[in-house]
Amino acid sequence: MTAFHIDCEMSYDVVQQSLFVFNLAIPNSSQQRVIAETITTTPATAYDEFRDEAGHNRFLRVDVAPGPFTVRYLATVELQPPLIDVDAPEVPLARLPGELLIYVRPSRYCEVEAIYGFAVRKFGNLPTGYRRVQAICQWVKENVDYQTGSSTVNSSARDVLANRAGVCRDFAHLVIALCRALNVPARFVTAYTRYETPPPDFHAVVEAYLGDRWHLFDPTELAPISDLVRLGIGRDALDVPFATYFGSAQMRRLSPMVLQAKPGETLMTLQTEDAGIVLSPSAPVSGVRA
Amino acid sequence: MTAFHIDCEMSYDVVQQSLFVFNLAIPNSSQQRVIAETITTTPATAYDEFRDEAGHNRFLRVDVAPGPFTVRYLATVELQPPLIDVDAPEVPLARLPGELLIYVRPSRYCEVEAIYGFAVRKFGNLPTGYRRVQAICQWVKENVDYQTGSSTVNSSARDVLANRAGVCRDFAHLVIALCRALNVPARFVTAYTRYETPPPDFHAVVEAYLGDRWHLFDPTELAPISDLVRLGIGRDALDVPFATYFGSAQMRRLSPMVLQAKPGETLMTLQTEDAGIVLSPSAPVSGVRA
Amino acid sequence: MTAFHIDCEMSYDVVQQSLFVFNLAIPNSSQQRVIAETITTTPATAYDEFRDEAGHNRFLRVDVAPGPFTVRYLATVELQPPLIDVDAPEVPLARLPGELLIYVRPSRYCEVEAIYGFAVRKFGNLPTGYRRVQAICQWVKENVDYQTGSSTVNSSARDVLANRAGVCRDFAHLVIALCRALNVPARFVTAYTRYETPPPDFHAVVEAYLGDRWHLFDPTELAPISDLVRLGIGRDALDVPFATYFGSAQMRRLSPMVLQAKPGETLMTLQTEDAGIVLSPSAPVSGVRA
Amino acid sequence: MTAFHIDCEMSYDVVQQSLFVFNLAIPNSSQQRVIAETITTTPATAYDEFRDEAGHNRFLRVDVAPGPFTVRYLATVELQPPLIDVDAPEVPLARLPGELLIYVRPSRYCEVEAIYGFAVRKFGNLPTGYRRVQAICQWVKENVDYQTGSSTVNSSARDVLANRAGVCRDFAHLVIALCRALNVPARFVTAYTRYETPPPDFHAVVEAYLGDRWHLFDPTELAPISDLVRLGIGRDALDVPFATYFGSAQMRRLSPMVLQAKPGETLMTLQTEDAGIVLSPSAPVSGVRA
Repeated sequence: MTAFHIDCEMSYDVVQQSLFVFNLAIPNSSQQRVIAETITTTPATAYDEFRDEAGHNRFLRVDVAPGPFTVRYLATVELQPPLIDVDAPEVPLARLPGELLIYVRPSRYCEVEAIYGFAVRKFGNLPTGYRRVQAICQWVKENVDYQTGSSTVNSSARDVLANRAGVCRDFAHLVIALCRALNVPARFVTAYTRYETPPPDFHAVVEAYLGDRWHLFDPTELAPISDLVRLGIGRDALDVPFATYFGSAQMRRLSPMVLQAKPGETLMTLQTEDAGIVLSPSAPVSGVRA
Repeated sequence: MTAFHIDCEMSYDVVQQSLFVFNLAIPNSSQQRVIAETITTTPATAYDEFRDEAGHNRFLRVDVAPGPFTVRYLATVELQPPLIDVDAPEVPLARLPGELLIYVRPSRYCEVEAIYGFAVRKFGNLPTGYRRVQAICQWVKENVDYQTGSSTVNSSARDVLANRAGVCRDFAHLVIALCRALNVPARFVTAYTRYETPPPDFHAVVEAYLGDRWHLFDPTELAPISDLVRLGIGRDALDVPFATYFGSAQMRRLSPMVLQAKPGETLMTLQTEDAGIVLSPSAPVSGVRA
Repeated sequence: MTAFHIDCEMSYDVVQQSLFVFNLAIPNSSQQRVIAETITTTPATAYDEFRDEAGHNRFLRVDVAPGPFTVRYLATVELQPPLIDVDAPEVPLARLPGELLIYVRPSRYCEVEAIYGFAVRKFGNLPTGYRRVQAICQWVKENVDYQTGSSTVNSSARDVLANRAGVCRDFAHLVIALCRALNVPARFVTAYTRYETPPPDFHAVVEAYLGDRWHLFDPTELAPISDLVRLGIGRDALDVPFATYFGSAQMRRLSPMVLQAKPGETLMTLQTEDAGIVLSPSAPVSGVRA
Repeated sequence: MTAFHIDCEMSYDVVQQSLFVFNLAIPNSSQQRVIAETITTTPATAYDEFRDEAGHNRFLRVDVAPGPFTVRYLATVELQPPLIDVDAPEVPLARLPGELLIYVRPSRYCEVEAIYGFAVRKFGNLPTGYRRVQAICQWVKENVDYQTGSSTVNSSARDVLANRAGVCRDFAHLVIALCRALNVPARFVTAYTRYETPPPDFHAVVEAYLGDRWHLFDPTELAPISDLVRLGIGRDALDVPFATYFGSAQMRRLSPMVLQAKPGETLMTLQTEDAGIVLSPSAPVSGVRA
């Protein structure tokens, strides 16, 4: 078991009274447990926490007055070793827990029907199970350029398959769509992780359901899956934006810092003066609405 | 309080072993209560029932052998009088139950951001609340042609707004997208209802959240809302297809018959020899996948 | 030099007075020469012939009264041996005849920018020139299923690249988009040809500009390029529909028959009783407009 | 008859050897005559001029070395008074010059079929002819916000109809699509004009074919049509980008200055120190391609 400190700061210039919804707070699960956390807003502003209807994700809602605004989330979380079972079989749809069938269907960014022909051609005859999902991830890694600015918030799995360039979010969407086309349940997972190279940023990866469990896959290979702290779970990026706001605001800084914790440590401050200024983050931030 | 009999039959020619998922069975809620129901498959085939993750909808899963296959759902359901409160106000997003915020965001068929400019221009300055949603429904009714065959399963709110033609599903998507653009939570509801004119078919309508309750709206005005038996609830049609199948099959017949029940009656047979043959239903039936 | 007889018949049930525009008549060029032709309408209806602004294509315009309507085109055409020069080099854009630059730009069905990443990754490092276009054609042939019904009139190069299935028109669009992404001018060519297997249909292929000449390529490999009688030339299928109509009509029959001619023969009748009934042709027929 | 001086400068930082194609030079026609012009490149670089296949537009091609690059076009042009004939009738398609039929068909940015339902509903029953096109322009002016940044180079007529916001190019595309849906030939025209308010920019307007002539319409009403110097003519913006380049470059300045000329004047310098820096012009500039 390992533990990580998270110190995530997001700053905005708020132009008019705006309602923010953040997905920053880490949920507990059988794979991870939050052992300490604090949420701070500057200036101090009341917020409430809620979950989505399916209960997967923790959202914070804050009604923010005009001016600068910062939300900061500190947490220390213990991770179970990741599940890696290369022999995990695919589960026949007839035996799949019913509520997971949604994860083999299309979603906004994962147009299963549009890439079905390619998926079957390329991966339809491979040995099934964990290794097939691995093969899909590897193919995506080898055939798609990781390239900041090559995609937009509207880019979908089909677009990325055609243009062969994207960021972590796009890699995840493509893997998910390919898995679903082969009837393997797959979902979108956002995560905190240490990037090898600055600036710090949120990450997006994939979970595929094999052998009656969800298994993590990172087709970008940017981080070892043992270092991924799961943040949001959804059908695709539409379900788990890091921040949505209704009003008018400008993001000024996005800095999700992560550090491996030593035994007994909790809630360590990680922000430094010069940490990650990000103006147009690859993270799925929603648009402004009056 | 009124009651309705439902007798819904769906028939297929199944080409190869196929897994079907049906959304035919009526859920209970504060507005409606199933007092009797039966589900029959011919040939007799085991099925299981499950709910989606959010718990709204009842799905039946059946693994069907090649050959003809019919599922038939009989139910008698009591309806509360519909909630019609023309003074129901809009709920500020800051006070909305958090899990409902998803219903002001875009979804696959309701591209809020693509029709935002139109929504604000046309309806942004109207008196808010129930009457504004009414005005949206009325505008859609007056400005969109109800025209079978004018749209496809890929048609979205934006498409319908541009082409001004569609069926009940398209009317619902457009109203939903317009409501959401104005920060009014809105969701997609499929329903059993008596159509004035044959053939019998499923219906699709809208619920908008006003004054702390969901209110039904039918922009097609094809049926009085007091006669709508809610079947499926979702962000849009993607969430609540009447039938999805994995395999290979051909729909032969779709016949959802509805009759007002007399006191004390339960489970009345309504199918007749010549009831509704529908080959390409407007209902959101998913595609075949091997 | 070889010669071919064409006997092409198109029949409609015309519902209301409709204006038809046909692209059935073969243009002369340095590669082919029409030595005899007749155009017959039944019932006999006046038509006029015109060319597009660029002068490539021959269009027939007929204003048709309600009822059955047939147009029949007979021709005998001599073909030069096709240009096959595997050493033909790519022409630098700076030296290309200026009016051909349009053929390296995007068009409606060939979204160059959407498949640019893939094109460069897959074919960017290959030896340039004729052999590179050959490699593209071969890759498309090997990686896209020729499958009637797998695409629609809206399917574009990007769609086909993602779904890996299509018909001749889609194969051509994909090859064209890939060529253009690599700065090789490429255009869409419709053709009469003998299909190995019935039903008879129009064909769609590609011309790429190499070594100061247009070279024919057929990525479907359905016909030897020596047997292709060029009919229409355009940026993509949008420019050269076989038939467009303004009004209301239903196509009943499409039967473009082709036979190699013996020396001295002209205008041979090829239609037979049972030749190709085609109700939803893969050919780019435009929609009805009132 | 009036005359205008044009002084148009476009500046780039060229990163690697890049081929530029400019559409800056004004063509002669029955409505306008260039009486003097000069084209200057800095550093001095050879260029050639060519026309598109249909012969409408003048394009300049320049192969540019890395470093700063400026092209400057000076011209003096005499304009005939614009044709305004409110009684000009629509021309039946059966009598239209055949080569103009392309202007009632869809094109990349004008998806006629997607907005057909709206067009017929809204304008189908109006008196036909010039006044109907006027009514379309007026409706677009009143129902679409002119808003820089509200659209992208991918925005089409359908998008603008749904979102009700755009710039001159979008206004033009929407008017064109609506005209075509009603069988009125319409085309896209770029123009030099004096904007009332800085910064200087190219303009985009519409020509509709009525009473056997092309008539200018400016749905933005940003400039009197008597002051529009026609630059490029095409099916839509795809055909007439002000600048396309193949290589890598960054636009630094776009400054198309226009001044009414006094009798006898030619080639007046209009650029000033502080004239229009434009980094992301609304003009249809094509993307970079390696």
